[in-house]
Amino acid sequence: MIPAIDEIRRAAARIAPHAHRTPVMRCRSLDAMSGAELFFKCENLQRAGAFKFRGAVNAVLSLPAERAARGVASHSSGNHAAALALAARVCGVPCRVVMPRGAPAVKQAAVRGYGAEIRFCEPSLQAREQGLAELVADSGAAVIHPYDDEAVIAGQGTAALELVEEVADLDLLLCPVGGGGLASGTAIAAHGASPRTRVVAVEPAGADDARRSFRQGRLLLSVAPDTIADGLLTSLSERTFGIIRALVHDVVCVDDAAIARAMRLVFERMKLVIEPSAAVPLAALLEGRLRCAGQRVGIILSGGNVDLGRLATLDMDR
Amino acid sequence: MIPAIDEIRRAAARIAPHAHRTPVMRCRSLDAMSGAELFFKCENLQRAGAFKFRGAVNAVLSLPAERAARGVASHSSGNHAAALALAARVCGVPCRVVMPRGAPAVKQAAVRGYGAEIRFCEPSLQAREQGLAELVADSGAAVIHPYDDEAVIAGQGTAALELVEEVADLDLLLCPVGGGGLASGTAIAAHGASPRTRVVAVEPAGADDARRSFRQGRLLLSVAPDTIADGLLTSLSERTFGIIRALVHDVVCVDDAAIARAMRLVFERMKLVIEPSAAVPLAALLEGRLRCAGQRVGIILSGGNVDLGRLATLDMDR
Repeated sequence: MIPAIDEIRRAAARIAPHAHRTPVMRCRSLDAMSGAELFFKCENLQRAGAFKFRGAVNAVLSLPAERAARGVASHSSGNHAAALALAARVCGVPCRVVMPRGAPAVKQAAVRGYGAEIRFCEPSLQAREQGLAELVADSGAAVIHPYDDEAVIAGQGTAALELVEEVADLDLLLCPVGGGGLASGTAIAAHGASPRTRVVAVEPAGADDARRSFRQGRLLLSVAPDTIADGLLTSLSERTFGIIRALVHDVVCVDDAAIARAMRLVFERMKLVIEPSAAVPLAALLEGRLRCAGQRVGIILSGGNVDLGRLATLDMDR
Repeated sequence: MIPAIDEIRRAAARIAPHAHRTPVMRCRSLDAMSGAELFFKCENLQRAGAFKFRGAVNAVLSLPAERAARGVASHSSGNHAAALALAARVCGVPCRVVMPRGAPAVKQAAVRGYGAEIRFCEPSLQAREQGLAELVADSGAAVIHPYDDEAVIAGQGTAALELVEEVADLDLLLCPVGGGGLASGTAIAAHGASPRTRVVAVEPAGADDARRSFRQGRLLLSVAPDTIADGLLTSLSERTFGIIRALVHDVVCVDDAAIARAMRLVFERMKLVIEPSAAVPLAALLEGRLRCAGQRVGIILSGGNVDLGRLATLDMDR
């Protein structure tokens, strides 16, 4: 039921010609502020600007050739659309994406820039799913779900695998959690390749379905989630909840003000552009939500796709 | 008269325990936009956020012990103050800085955070020089000039030395030019360690003293310089002009709008925070001011000390 570390190792070999092996960065001042040794896995420097490319390209490469030839498809308003479009391009297969009318122009431009076809729909989940169903009926394209997919989860886990292979003896490994693809892959990778490392998933308080599900032992969905971490609005699936429940040691929450502060610190001290979702784990550390004094802590900086206008807003908050 | 490559090699050995060997980064989309192969030397990831730390720490380490014990001093409203303060701290010597009243609070905080003492003065060059003279008379501190100093120039050259050692066969090497310390060190390093590499210094059109001096063959000073590249407002000295005239192949200019566009591209495509001064060389490439098609081009990303508020302004321009 739970994918094995071997699937992540196979994914790592499969995506190696296409994905960046992203650098691990340190920061003295954030070490001093947290009292821990922090190792940042820079997926903001991944192709298409986020870890999402790993899962997308692994999923496309895992399709049988005749299936891939008919193309891939998904519905998304965010990073998954761009990641899938680029994955399809590097694999030489067509890509079609259903996007809600009104999706940010910059996201539309990214998807088109990677050569994918966009079909617009009304901005509701129902319209998105119907649009995708029609598109698949027309084209025979394979649907690549952003997180509820074994190949996607295995791909996302390659970031943590690279990190634990490069940095030995991590006490703690932190990642953000939204739909749970990254958290699932991270937990499988750490469990298999660095078993004494504790994995903690961090979630915005305004979209705390994973924490509630984890505490209550049953899948609960987000109702009207609201957070600046716009990559983490989605709820877990039964598949990702099952993996997280089995292999993640804890799920903790932080509020938006702490997320904005952490994001600003990464800009100012590390000179890295990250999106709000990527700042969520560091926010938990700096808010004292986790014991980490003297520990070696890995953090997945999940992505860097943020509008400059958003940064302006963060500055206003100061 | 012109410092030799050996001085830069000695500086590299001297500063190695203290300065970061910064990474060299690539970017597919900027390669595509420029038609060249670009290699970015990330001095925005240097300690204290800019290449300035290299020169400052080399200068402090080059002082005789009894001279260093009385401390170091300078006047500065910008990166040199922070770099010198940190250099003094890592060398265990006192540091005093004359800053104009009204210098940005964030810069004052950086200098104080590194343990230096600030003496405030009126915001004029005369008041700054007088404040520094008084401070030196009181303390016997050694003045470390931000660029008109052989040890500082040798330290700045270590960035280019690392780059040409790591990336063979660069056709072109670009750096920004203000007072000329970085441009001088870069030209000496390339001339000595990669002689077929052409070095071009790039300057904001609103502070074009280096270009005018280079073209006319005599030192001309900036009058009322005005540019968003606030690290490049200063004029060359006789020393830096002499080196640039002898070893730099050309000096070209770009306007502020092009600088802002280049800075935004580095944020969006490379996910790196850079200050406007650091964007100046890339701006020249993207504006077509230099022949670079098919060439291997090194670019010194000189620093990353920028307020988030500044980014907001750039976004408005779009």
